[in-house]
Amino acid sequence: MKAEIVAVGTELLMGETADTNSGWLASRFPQVGLELQYVTVVGDNLAQLTEVLGRAFQRSDFTFTCGGLGPTEDDLTRDAVAKVLGEEITTAPELLRWLEGVFRERRMEMPAANIKQAGIIPSATSLPNPMGTAPAWWVERGGHVIVTMPGPPRELQFMWEHQVEPRIRERVRGNIVLTRTFKTIGLSEAAVDEMVHHLYGSNSNPYLGIYAKPDGIYLRAIARAQGQRQAQEMLHPLEEGIQGALGRYIWGVDEDRPEEMVGRLLTERGLTLATIESCTGGLLAGTITDVPGSSRYFRGGIIAYSNDIKVAAGVDPTVIEKHGAVSQECAAAMAQAVCRHLGADCGLSVTGVAGPDSLEGVAPGNVFIGVAHPGGVEVLHQRYPPRRPLVKARAATMALLELVRVLKAGVGQK
Amino acid sequence: MKAEIVAVGTELLMGETADTNSGWLASRFPQVGLELQYVTVVGDNLAQLTEVLGRAFQRSDFTFTCGGLGPTEDDLTRDAVAKVLGEEITTAPELLRWLEGVFRERRMEMPAANIKQAGIIPSATSLPNPMGTAPAWWVERGGHVIVTMPGPPRELQFMWEHQVEPRIRERVRGNIVLTRTFKTIGLSEAAVDEMVHHLYGSNSNPYLGIYAKPDGIYLRAIARAQGQRQAQEMLHPLEEGIQGALGRYIWGVDEDRPEEMVGRLLTERGLTLATIESCTGGLLAGTITDVPGSSRYFRGGIIAYSNDIKVAAGVDPTVIEKHGAVSQECAAAMAQAVCRHLGADCGLSVTGVAGPDSLEGVAPGNVFIGVAHPGGVEVLHQRYPPRRPLVKARAATMALLELVRVLKAGVGQK
Repeated sequence: MKAEIVAVGTELLMGETADTNSGWLASRFPQVGLELQYVTVVGDNLAQLTEVLGRAFQRSDFTFTCGGLGPTEDDLTRDAVAKVLGEEITTAPELLRWLEGVFRERRMEMPAANIKQAGIIPSATSLPNPMGTAPAWWVERGGHVIVTMPGPPRELQFMWEHQVEPRIRERVRGNIVLTRTFKTIGLSEAAVDEMVHHLYGSNSNPYLGIYAKPDGIYLRAIARAQGQRQAQEMLHPLEEGIQGALGRYIWGVDEDRPEEMVGRLLTERGLTLATIESCTGGLLAGTITDVPGSSRYFRGGIIAYSNDIKVAAGVDPTVIEKHGAVSQECAAAMAQAVCRHLGADCGLSVTGVAGPDSLEGVAPGNVFIGVAHPGGVEVLHQRYPPRRPLVKARAATMALLELVRVLKAGVGQK
Repeated sequence: MKAEIVAVGTELLMGETADTNSGWLASRFPQVGLELQYVTVVGDNLAQLTEVLGRAFQRSDFTFTCGGLGPTEDDLTRDAVAKVLGEEITTAPELLRWLEGVFRERRMEMPAANIKQAGIIPSATSLPNPMGTAPAWWVERGGHVIVTMPGPPRELQFMWEHQVEPRIRERVRGNIVLTRTFKTIGLSEAAVDEMVHHLYGSNSNPYLGIYAKPDGIYLRAIARAQGQRQAQEMLHPLEEGIQGALGRYIWGVDEDRPEEMVGRLLTERGLTLATIESCTGGLLAGTITDVPGSSRYFRGGIIAYSNDIKVAAGVDPTVIEKHGAVSQECAAAMAQAVCRHLGADCGLSVTGVAGPDSLEGVAPGNVFIGVAHPGGVEVLHQRYPPRRPLVKARAATMALLELVRVLKAGVGQK
């Protein structure tokens, strides 16, 4: 089924607000059989909006509008839809009662302007929006559908998941695209390719793609079928094959993030963690603590931007003198020192040069990652393109993945 | 002048890549007199792309395409432009020589597919792209312009700044919009409004808007005029008035970020900084170290996710016992302790509850920020909506701004 998105708002055209809704919706369409053909961003201009919407309604099976459902004069999506269908907007008493109730709950008087949010046209069904004051419309005529979605991302996402997606699943048959992404670490792209090649050969459905990403090599399995069930059945043997071939190199699937995997593995093994970082400057610890509940396994960390702080944390000063602060030896000493210093089972260290300048004769982009664990200490040397934000991001991600690798290899057992 | 953006790429419609280029360009258009009317995202489909581009070329003075200039079969932007203009693409010998040179420098053989990047049509002038292998086209006919921009954001931004924007400034007269944003901290929205109200009254040009943002209250001055010079002259008295009225409450302008202001003020005053943070979990230090050269004033930091780490850093355990770890007293003690512990002139502390759970009976969203400086110590109490990512981000930003405020007030003098 052909789909189209119309994002409404002059603030999007002025570059003041980024349109994140279109991308979010776009990534959800394939799994319900919608094929996105166009995204159009248009301002709060009734003539332009009506023209864009009219073209979309004609050429696409499903048109999704984002935004323009507010109570102000600039909110024109309802008016444009009514014009495209040649229908009149009237106030729906049940919507008005609901809206008055929302304001009563907020202990506010309802401004007169909000009445327009209770408007509806004959071809529209109202979809309740418990997150805001703008109900969505599901408009259907001649086999074409327009769905008006609220602009605030939290409302739009809630409406998609609870109101819109289930209705689309009922109506759309066929062209279902299911994907499953496996995230690996510790192998090169070529090695991954060799190890799974027998699984896909020249198949285009299900299809297996291999991609190099900042957090390792991804395998993406894609199945296209007439129904969910059928697509799942096509994916299943491929998934089993990938698990069999790559087993312990897989650190996560789909939306898994390295910091969540670290949390899961530490919790499973009953281990605590401390960090000591120089070039990542707090980003490593900041990422670890993005996970709710991380205080249960994360003891704390040290940002050792100067050498005397490394020494104060327990790094032997002769290690720094002899090998330099950016060295394999220093990374190992830092990881071990922070375990003792902060009383943790595992220590994760990062020492490197984020740039733009060299440090102690070491060029920007060089990073050493140390993992200390009850069974010993391991160090990984990485070289990244010497751009500061990139070095910080890659080094923090790779440090987490190196810890995942060590924990999965089982050497971190107490 | 009416402008339009056409972003090309099936990966954008699949939700795999976010279209950041359109928003970036959109925010640059007003200052050169371009009024953006539409953004359209379309896939790698020659018929659809040609149709979208044909409509854009007709209705807009300037059309900017993003992407589709690569060497593969999916890269169709050049073909679509040629079709819209009914012109033939031929290989330009000087572009081919340049392209061969690029590959020679990279010590690679040029794949035959890349020859198409040396193609051109009679109405197009080639704009050199030193960041990649795709030159842009500046196409002009009948007063309408199409500019083809490369898709990778770094290339697109470079091309805009060095090739495209100067050409537009030559051609576009009038409708120039200049803006200047002043960022304040320490005043409420209402207080700011009262202090600058005499400056703008009911003027709509120049216009003065007041906005509450996560990092304080912004004042945005907007002037519309026929030329750059004239717009500047309209803004000037307004800027002087704002500076006069709000003086020391202004911490930055336009793209200034709190971490850069912190760096500038510490450097000017010859002071060093150390951090100790709990609920921000490393985000505070990570933000400080995003600034190149921050190692000159940032000594390091401690992430004290557990109370014994606070004590090890020098916080008196009786302070924690008596007042709790999330308290004004603990924030003050942490800031002072980290100065001594890491040998810095200033100490910045954050202690709070990021959530989702309460901590020691304190509800999520409560945050205390401590600033220790040579003249004493100050603490700020904040309450944020209890969502973890939001609490972390707001607390880190506000800690930096509180340090800016203290440094600007001059109490941080040695």
